[in-house]
Amino acid sequence: MSPVPKLFSGFAVEKPEKWQEPKLVQYEPRELWPTDITIKVIACGVCGSDCHQVSGNWGPFNRENLIVGHEIIGEVIEVGSEVTKHKIGDIVGIGAQSDSCGECERCKSGNEQYCQNGSVLTYNSVHPKADGYVTQGGYASHIRVNAHFAVAVPKKLSIHNAAPLLCGGLTAYSPIVRYAGHDLTGKTIGIIGVGGIGAMALQIANALGAKDVYAFSRSSAKKEDSFKLGATKFIATGEESNWSESHKDTFDLILHCANTGKGANFNPFLDTLKLTGTFVTISAPPVDEVISFSPWSLLFSGAKVAGSIIGSMKEAEELLELYADKGLTVWIEKIPVSEEGVKEVLTRAHKGDVKYRFVLTDFDKVFT
Amino acid sequence: MSPVPKLFSGFAVEKPEKWQEPKLVQYEPRELWPTDITIKVIACGVCGSDCHQVSGNWGPFNRENLIVGHEIIGEVIEVGSEVTKHKIGDIVGIGAQSDSCGECERCKSGNEQYCQNGSVLTYNSVHPKADGYVTQGGYASHIRVNAHFAVAVPKKLSIHNAAPLLCGGLTAYSPIVRYAGHDLTGKTIGIIGVGGIGAMALQIANALGAKDVYAFSRSSAKKEDSFKLGATKFIATGEESNWSESHKDTFDLILHCANTGKGANFNPFLDTLKLTGTFVTISAPPVDEVISFSPWSLLFSGAKVAGSIIGSMKEAEELLELYADKGLTVWIEKIPVSEEGVKEVLTRAHKGDVKYRFVLTDFDKVFT
Repeated sequence: MSPVPKLFSGFAVEKPEKWQEPKLVQYEPRELWPTDITIKVIACGVCGSDCHQVSGNWGPFNRENLIVGHEIIGEVIEVGSEVTKHKIGDIVGIGAQSDSCGECERCKSGNEQYCQNGSVLTYNSVHPKADGYVTQGGYASHIRVNAHFAVAVPKKLSIHNAAPLLCGGLTAYSPIVRYAGHDLTGKTIGIIGVGGIGAMALQIANALGAKDVYAFSRSSAKKEDSFKLGATKFIATGEESNWSESHKDTFDLILHCANTGKGANFNPFLDTLKLTGTFVTISAPPVDEVISFSPWSLLFSGAKVAGSIIGSMKEAEELLELYADKGLTVWIEKIPVSEEGVKEVLTRAHKGDVKYRFVLTDFDKVFT
Repeated sequence: MSPVPKLFSGFAVEKPEKWQEPKLVQYEPRELWPTDITIKVIACGVCGSDCHQVSGNWGPFNRENLIVGHEIIGEVIEVGSEVTKHKIGDIVGIGAQSDSCGECERCKSGNEQYCQNGSVLTYNSVHPKADGYVTQGGYASHIRVNAHFAVAVPKKLSIHNAAPLLCGGLTAYSPIVRYAGHDLTGKTIGIIGVGGIGAMALQIANALGAKDVYAFSRSSAKKEDSFKLGATKFIATGEESNWSESHKDTFDLILHCANTGKGANFNPFLDTLKLTGTFVTISAPPVDEVISFSPWSLLFSGAKVAGSIIGSMKEAEELLELYADKGLTVWIEKIPVSEEGVKEVLTRAHKGDVKYRFVLTDFDKVFT
């Protein structure tokens, strides 16, 4: 059994101006509460959120030397006295949320990701119960979280391929099942943006049995990949004008997975929703960005526009089971964790230069 | 029984530049189809749409000398050979829609207002089945429409007070029952904008049994009226900063009834929706207007934003029955129809100078 160190180690960014200079640092974790577990990190996916956060798109850091990363797979090496969900030796995943109040109606109804009383994100969150403590993420040796926010990783799943499901995959899965259902038979789903999240969204929509899964991308560059990922139709919105005219009343759900909606014209998408359909954005862009619609597109379509953030723990479990059951594999590129490795993944992910998700690996070689 | 004239008469606006100079004109109606009825107009409410349309906010006219008006009450004086819904002598109402394809899934499922194959608005619509014919509204002696789009007026309702329900009232009613249900027991509803439609929305939400009905207005000027109309709470958004902080997780539905969303900050409203709640805009503003949201407000609230246009014929019937059953009275100001009268209602409605709806009356004195 691995010992639990007093200080945890991780690759931190000192401040947004220095986001391309990650450094190995040590930090003091908050104490172990009875509901907590401590995890020794094995792998960590690289989310677009990590890039937004370190580069200052989401505003300033709440601490110096911030460690990001919230697609974490690790081994449980310590459990609090009240924990029954996990035990030492379990392989678990941690996503973008690591605590919530647990008592509000949202928490109690399986919607803990929308808790408004004390949701704690995995990094850069001032923990309301921990006296100013700012959470640190998974580009690190260890992480300590509320056990409820760790999900068991099915044995059939590859640890590395499972990592991106914890945030990116869940962010796609939750709105798909909430707005279109767990059984997509007969349903038509549109996925805008074939990137880190969109690639998983195509897999998920297909795996849940959608009649058609449309991939929307600006150019045709990702057409072939989209079909391999699960798309049944592909539309290059920058190349096909008037595509929406021939797609009235088509979509049960359109999921906007691009990492920005800036300057995008969403009206053609609204025009193609079924009356009961929904356009859901999961894009978490720079804090000052707004998305705009013509009220007329909303009126004439009767369309709904919604936002969705990550997913519940129950949904995370369902998603991992889905990938295990269907034998699905997230498309990843592995990079060994190190100062150089973290610099590379942040820089390349920032440019979208990855097919389609980085996973940092070899944590045991660095954190001995 | 009234004879059906060859030419119908009405108060028309020649073109948008002359919207404050309505003139009495005659026009040739389209022929009577087997599914049509002809109505002799008794009264016509004045909708914000009429102002938008005549002043060019919705673009150019599809004909010269356009007659607006789509809150029409009249007597059936002619029925087509296939009509069974109404008979001669019936008092009926016509709203903003006067025909649709009748065959698409939307029409067949009681959602004819969202028909995308041939919805015909009561005025300024090029009728797809009538060889370029452009529809004329209800500031007129007569109107001829598909009988499906006329609704029987309950005897208990005052004809004048019923008129504004046909468009304005229905526009509020449909999203309330679709998004919050027909029984609002335990529900909290917010109404933004105490104007022509908002005033009826307050009455409707109260009449359907809402636990709380909030009226949102910029100033406190309409506070007293709001309570008389059915509000249980009033918030002057221009005077109370941070009102949203104390209203998290409050609203099942917020209905945006202001006639423009330009420059409005909707984020505080999104922040106060329940997780299952919806923000619905019914505002049909100038064609180039857009509404904007922070994706973050959508994400963290899990909120939905929707558009809604008028309502179905079934909903129109329900609404008239509701007002009849509950003994409700729309707050109106009556103005006898004439060139001067139409000029006055358009000019004053354009400025919002009415409590809360004009109804043009005394049609029988002008159209003899």
